[in-house]
Amino acid sequence: METIDDGGLHCVDGILLGSARCGIKTHSEQPDVALVLSEAPASAAGVFTRNAFAAAPVLWCRRLLPTDSARAVLINAGNANACTGEQGERDVRASTGLVADLVSAAPEQVLAASTGIIGHPLPMDKLTRGIRDAAESLGAEREAALAAERAIMTTDTHPKACAVRSQIDGLPFHVAGMAKGSGMIAPHMATMLCLVATDAAVPPSLLDRHLREAADLTFNRITVDGDTSTNDSVIMLATGTSGVRIRTGTNAEGAFRPALQAVLADLAQQVVRDGEGATKLLTVSVEGAADAGAAETAARAVAESQLVKCAVYGGDPNWGRIVCAVGYSGVPVQPHRVSVDLGGVRVFAGGTPTGDDASGEMQGPDVRVTIRLGDGPGEAAIQTCDLTEEYVRINAEYHT
Amino acid sequence: METIDDGGLHCVDGILLGSARCGIKTHSEQPDVALVLSEAPASAAGVFTRNAFAAAPVLWCRRLLPTDSARAVLINAGNANACTGEQGERDVRASTGLVADLVSAAPEQVLAASTGIIGHPLPMDKLTRGIRDAAESLGAEREAALAAERAIMTTDTHPKACAVRSQIDGLPFHVAGMAKGSGMIAPHMATMLCLVATDAAVPPSLLDRHLREAADLTFNRITVDGDTSTNDSVIMLATGTSGVRIRTGTNAEGAFRPALQAVLADLAQQVVRDGEGATKLLTVSVEGAADAGAAETAARAVAESQLVKCAVYGGDPNWGRIVCAVGYSGVPVQPHRVSVDLGGVRVFAGGTPTGDDASGEMQGPDVRVTIRLGDGPGEAAIQTCDLTEEYVRINAEYHT
Repeated sequence: METIDDGGLHCVDGILLGSARCGIKTHSEQPDVALVLSEAPASAAGVFTRNAFAAAPVLWCRRLLPTDSARAVLINAGNANACTGEQGERDVRASTGLVADLVSAAPEQVLAASTGIIGHPLPMDKLTRGIRDAAESLGAEREAALAAERAIMTTDTHPKACAVRSQIDGLPFHVAGMAKGSGMIAPHMATMLCLVATDAAVPPSLLDRHLREAADLTFNRITVDGDTSTNDSVIMLATGTSGVRIRTGTNAEGAFRPALQAVLADLAQQVVRDGEGATKLLTVSVEGAADAGAAETAARAVAESQLVKCAVYGGDPNWGRIVCAVGYSGVPVQPHRVSVDLGGVRVFAGGTPTGDDASGEMQGPDVRVTIRLGDGPGEAAIQTCDLTEEYVRINAEYHT
Repeated sequence: METIDDGGLHCVDGILLGSARCGIKTHSEQPDVALVLSEAPASAAGVFTRNAFAAAPVLWCRRLLPTDSARAVLINAGNANACTGEQGERDVRASTGLVADLVSAAPEQVLAASTGIIGHPLPMDKLTRGIRDAAESLGAEREAALAAERAIMTTDTHPKACAVRSQIDGLPFHVAGMAKGSGMIAPHMATMLCLVATDAAVPPSLLDRHLREAADLTFNRITVDGDTSTNDSVIMLATGTSGVRIRTGTNAEGAFRPALQAVLADLAQQVVRDGEGATKLLTVSVEGAADAGAAETAARAVAESQLVKCAVYGGDPNWGRIVCAVGYSGVPVQPHRVSVDLGGVRVFAGGTPTGDDASGEMQGPDVRVTIRLGDGPGEAAIQTCDLTEEYVRINAEYHT
């Protein structure tokens, strides 16, 4: 498996990308509609927010996925189409129906995702024009992918994409994706969208299983601010155009799994590194827990602690805040068995400070915290960013 | 029941207060040791942090409480005596032992509480001097109480105290307390301390039950940043000097309960209003939930949402963030049955925005959010403060 320089969805055979600016993003000159087309019906699966107020496009996709006949994914930024009631659901049907007409597909073959402000109806006149323009711009080159990556951005400071090439029995295949993180026009939450594709052929149920596993190990292990949005979506298409066929229990599955996980892990890290106001990436690893669930709970408590995130921002080796967060995480711990390392320096062990200075471990753009709880087999890592004045400014100055 | 103007622990008969500055707070000229003495053995109870890394003074108090023979509470600010291992426990024994000698009590009659930096041993030479000075300064007047209130402050911007007078069968009694919120010398967390006293006579087990109930309804319903400290302590003394006796199932108990809850509620609100960097108080009420636990879970999710707290800071009627937090709280909700009011304006109902403008409800120092989930009997309220650049600055600029 190799990572492709400047890779993106254009690396996947059978995928076309279009985009347009129609003015849904009212505060930006960036494009705001992206259209991803599979030239032939593709397997598709999706993983969606657990928020009870799931947005209308999420409800639409949940009904359709997994499927063996997806043709397109319509994405808009600037409006989340969440908390919009039945009007929101009608707007999804209308906009996916228009895409279906334009690409000669059935409406049920068109998936949808939205990100942006909550509680405003989609401006359907603008979106209709945007969909037509995006459909006319469809192409398979790098420029088309880059324009689509830009179209789904909100407060993201740069587009996020990734592609890998792998092979099975000499036959190459690709996995690629694009993603967005937090939003600026309407930074109501860290609405996260990700679209992944492969030119391997993967049956829908198998694609669904692998996508869930990979999302759980990657996107579900990052946090910017602990706010789970109404729109989080990871949607995947498998075009099958490479000739590589993935079947359960085969060598091919063994090659596909790490390729998919590598792409999602790369995109997830791009999202958290570009979190609103972020200046540093923090990786919190917990080892020696009773099980993986306990490790994840403890790691998440540390990664979501406002005080820990402020300390990381300030470059302060403030292990007391880390120990404190582990202590209130709800995971059973025996204080004298716990150790904490900041980067390569052990700062806490046997219930007391070691006295070693870890200031130097806090200064770079990547900060690592490793917490050992005991001798159990459970381990997990959560990635987050620091909490800065800029995060507060972005999210306080915006007005609905 | 009436609130006493400028009231504090000096309003409770039989209580003496002392304080001193001994230099544990290295960045401030404020006093840092407080001593609260009951002239005669008092009933005492306590409610403490659930953090697994409970500080040494918390471990000490848990072993002793409830009791019918407490004489004193020693409090220091500037050092939390947490994550200090066996040395920390030895230091608690030594310092409470010194208090016991000075006030002619047994060591087990002296309780202790600490707040400040985690993971540093107590400077026992300084503390020893501070204890001697505090013991020499003991007095029953308002000035003594005010000095003690100042001695337990860290990043608090003002002292926090409260007293009420009530009566039973013509006999007056008092309940009073002092508290501290978040810390500046060592703002490692929102270490919360509260000492309450009454001159009613309350048996230890009954005092314990009422204190737990009142703390659960007050201090356990506030949050500044969601970080539960290693040192949170609410300790209560009942001197019995008023002649009022509280017994289970009596009218006296009926009068005592609201007096205690009023004092704790007042102090809890003072703490959250003075949260680090806070400019506004946010009260999140949830009604119509299946039960009180579900209501509290939903209210807490909203009150701990960084995005909601930033919106309150910015004065933005951003109900989408509120609905989103309810949606990821884990409480089962049917979106079309949910309504949200900002102050007196309904902004969301029946799954869609009402379109009414609630900007005016967000501008004052007190912001109220009321969420109705359905027709269930469960309700709860959580109070918090806004999230500001100043919070980040306080907690990022401090260096260990």
